Order: sequence, then structure tokens, then C-alpha cells
Amino acid sequence: MDAITRAIEHLARLPGLGPRSAQRIVLHLLRQRESRLRPLAEALTALAEAVRACSVCGNFDTTDPCRICASERRQKELLCVVKDVADLWALERAGVFRGRYHVTGGLLSPLDGVTPDDLRIPQLVNRVRAEGVREVILALDATVEGQTTAHYIADALADSGARVSHLAHGMPVGGELEFLDDGTIAAAFRARR
Amino acid sequence: MDAITRAIEHLARLPGLGPRSAQRIVLHLLRQRESRLRPLAEALTALAEAVRACSVCGNFDTTDPCRICASERRQKELLCVVKDVADLWALERAGVFRGRYHVTGGLLSPLDGVTPDDLRIPQLVNRVRAEGVREVILALDATVEGQTTAHYIADALADSGARVSHLAHGMPVGGELEFLDDGTIAAAFRARR
Repeated sequence: MDAITRAIEHLARLPGLGPRSAQRIVLHLLRQRESRLRPLAEALTALAEAVRACSVCGNFDTTDPCRICASERRQKELLCVVKDVADLWALERAGVFRGRYHVTGGLLSPLDGVTPDDLRIPQLVNRVRAEGVREVILALDATVEGQTTAHYIADALADSGARVSHLAHGMPVGGELEFLDDGTIAAAFRARR
Repeated sequence: MDAITRAIEHLARLPGLGPRSAQRIVLHLLRQRESRLRPLAEALTALAEAVRACSVCGNFDTTDPCRICASERRQKELLCVVKDVADLWALERAGVFRGRYHVTGGLLSPLDGVTPDDLRIPQLVNRVRAEGVREVILALDATVEGQTTAHYIADALADSGARVSHLAHGMPVGGELEFLDDGTIAAAFRARR
């Protein structure tokens, strides 16, 4: 297979792209070989070489432990559990949490055969004990799998001495009541202040 | 800047992508470093190394002249003029043309300061004479710039001995009359068979 076809096929497999958008990208890159194509190829090579999963929390970073785990300015007694690095980055963007993280690597799903041992839940239990964590915030999806996972983790931490909390349910900020689903409206009513 | 941020920034500049989709792609690639990230980085490096613009027609290929120009099975007396390689590939996909191509590299646009010398029009005139081309098919956009460019090229080839033709106007195959613009309806009427 030639270099053009191969590049199109690899790009077409990326999330959100297909054969036509991949072809458009390849032509765009070929027209700007030095200013766009080479820097992108080098950036992806560097990504593959330099970035690793943090052995403590599961975040991606160029150092291990990652900069969040290594930081002296993050509160060690607060641990926020997320399902993947995308969720961790979303919380960092929001800038509301100054503790540290634990990435489970997914959610429990008996139907898909995802058990606690497939996730980084045993490591979480060990960390909570070893690091003297006072509060574990379960920032997991408000879906069946997310809540099942949260429940399982809360049980597993029951005698750890740490308090376990969950993100609140309610209206999204800027959300319009008319377009909310019934479950969210009910949760927002129950948790009214 | 670190490797993750740099990869996201380079991907976010690609057509059709933005910061959020670029971040999603980087996480997707990091989760599958060996099966996805490295092959993509290598494919893009190979693209930068191996692919060149054909010095005859302007197509992108791993050989120069490109495989279409070098092929003995393409009719040398038929030349199809397109504005860019994306249009050339679209015609190759349709599989209706067995001659060779000439990529102008754009369309005339006095307002944007694009003159005939900015495009590969002098090279086109030379090719038509030197290669004994019998027919030049102008497969240019049905826009003001496309038609201005077609007009200019037809003039430039007036005493070359080659016949100059244009793609037909009319209804797109599968198109619904109700949704056609007036100009297309008028053109389809005039060219009725």
C-alpha cells in the first residue's frame, strides 16, 4: 500500500473522522509539508516516546508519577475517582479540585464482562489506606454503569476510615428546565436548597 | 510546551478538527500506543518523506512523474484541467476519465490577487503544445472564479490546435428538482436532450 493510502487509512480510524475527512486532511498536510505535516508527525512521534500512564493514578503525563501526583501543592488527603483521563482533564479544566486523582480505567459492566479486577479498584483501596486519604469523591457518570461502579467502590471503602462522597445531581448551569429529562428534574427537586 | 499539549495543538489545526476533538484523538491514541499511535506517527513521517508533487501535472504521488502521467494506458491526447488534487482524486474515484490531468493549483481571483502566473497555466499551455494534446477538458468549479479561470484558459489555448470542452451543467443525478437553485434549473432546461 502506498504512503498516501496508508496515511488516509490510519487517519480515517480516529474518532470523529472517516475516509473523506481523512483524505481532506492528507491533502491539507501535503500542501504544507514543512509547516504542518512534519511538525505533526514529529509531535505524534514525541507523544508515543514521551508520554506514559502514571503508575500511581493512571493519568497520562511525560513524568511518572505525573505532575499532579508529584505536586506538593495538591491535598494528599482528598482523592477524586474518575473513569478515564478525559474526565480527569475535564475536572482540571474546571479548576475546582485541588486534591489528587485515581483513574479506574472504565466502569463496571457485568454484561460486558468488566469486573472490579479489570479496573484499578484494588489499587484504589490500597491507596486510600496507604496514603491516609480522608475523603474519596466519586466523580463517575450519572449512568447505570457509573452508579453501579460508585456503589461497589463505596462498599469496598466502607471500613477504610475515609469518607465517600458523590457529585451532586441537579440542573446543569445554564440548562433550561423545559429540556431536562424527568430523572434530572426529580433529582433537582429532591436536592433543592 | 509538553508533548501532550503540542500534539493536541497540531491536531486542532487540521481541517474539521478543534481543541476538543483533538484532545479526544490524543487520548484515544495514548490508550492504544502500539496499535494506533505509533503506526499513525510512522505513516505521517512516511507521507512527508515519500510523497511529492508530480512535476508534470501537479498530482501528489510517491513517484515523479506520478503514476497517472507515467502510465502507458492513459490517453496522452486527452488532458483534464482541475483546480487541485482533491478534484483530481474525485474524478479518479468516479472512474470516467482515461486521459491525463493538469492541476492549476487554484482559481483566478483578481480580488485576492491570484493571477495566471500564480497558477500553473503557463505550464498548461506549454504541455498542450509539446504533448500534442487534442482535447482539453476544463473540469473547474461552476462558480464565478471557476468560470473566469475556464474562460481565461480557453482564450490562452485558442491557437493551440486543441479543442477545449467544459463539464456539462444540469441536475445532479439523484437530485430533486424542488431543491435546485434557479441557475441550475435554467442551465438544465437550456441543455435539455
